[in-house]
Amino acid sequence: MPDLAATRFAFEDFVKGETIEFHTVTVTADDIIDFAADWDPQPMHLDEEAGRATPLGGLAASGWHMICLIMRGMCEGFLLDSTSQGSPGVDEVNWLKPLRPGDTLTMRYTVLDKRMSRSRPHIGLVHFLFEAINQRGETVATIRNPIMFARREAAEAAR
Amino acid sequence: MPDLAATRFAFEDFVKGETIEFHTVTVTADDIIDFAADWDPQPMHLDEEAGRATPLGGLAASGWHMICLIMRGMCEGFLLDSTSQGSPGVDEVNWLKPLRPGDTLTMRYTVLDKRMSRSRPHIGLVHFLFEAINQRGETVATIRNPIMFARREAAEAAR
Repeated sequence: MPDLAATRFAFEDFVKGETIEFHTVTVTADDIIDFAADWDPQPMHLDEEAGRATPLGGLAASGWHMICLIMRGMCEGFLLDSTSQGSPGVDEVNWLKPLRPGDTLTMRYTVLDKRMSRSRPHIGLVHFLFEAINQRGETVATIRNPIMFARREAAEAAR
Repeated sequence: MPDLAATRFAFEDFVKGETIEFHTVTVTADDIIDFAADWDPQPMHLDEEAGRATPLGGLAASGWHMICLIMRGMCEGFLLDSTSQGSPGVDEVNWLKPLRPGDTLTMRYTVLDKRMSRSRPHIGLVHFLFEAINQRGETVATIRNPIMFARREAAEAAR
């Protein structure tokens, strides 16, 4: 079992109202096509010409590719160094702008709310808004979802 | 441009209230670990022993793996043979049960609602509930989200 007390981010370390940048990634045409071939093989995610005939206007990433990029960014940015216990689900996903080859996404979270679990007192829920913003300052995708974190005191008591 | 009028599923073909099974897939431990390594490298999605120390109780798929499986199932089940124009986002995702090695998911959709677009009269929005159900009859994950489809008449008029 990982030493939860030694991790950097426990429930107590998230501050309501705070906004933190946690990751940046640049996406290539091959990245877009590879993800689509695996998980969302619709023509506009596989081919520039096919994309032009759709509202996306050209080759653009699957919406789920954006979400997976945010998920991996979360892991690298803070989650793998945290007391995370997973998430029960997602309140909302918005796809606001296309993600195109060469785009760079900067990811940030805002802590919307946090509260202790009623049924499991060693765990708290942190409600996040995650935003991915491109190099033109446009918000490309957002997710609102809660993540469960063990309390640092609980992790220390279990040592 | 694909011949939209020749596709099987246009806006008109979705019936409010109807529930349709559209895909089945069985997941291996390697599938779970491969997805996690790409997109969600948290220990409980990579390793049986690490998973035992978490609420998942053993190796279990990333929640986003479940959603990507549903997305690919949608593509194979009906979306690639449709007038789909993509989706603006997701109203809700729920992860209800772990997805473990050897589990078989059956996917179905229910049409919750449908309406014409106000701004683009050749397009309609279909609001779906997607459910993935395991071999024990347990609902593992659900997504509620709208998908935009071109109307068949509009597609035929454009021929």
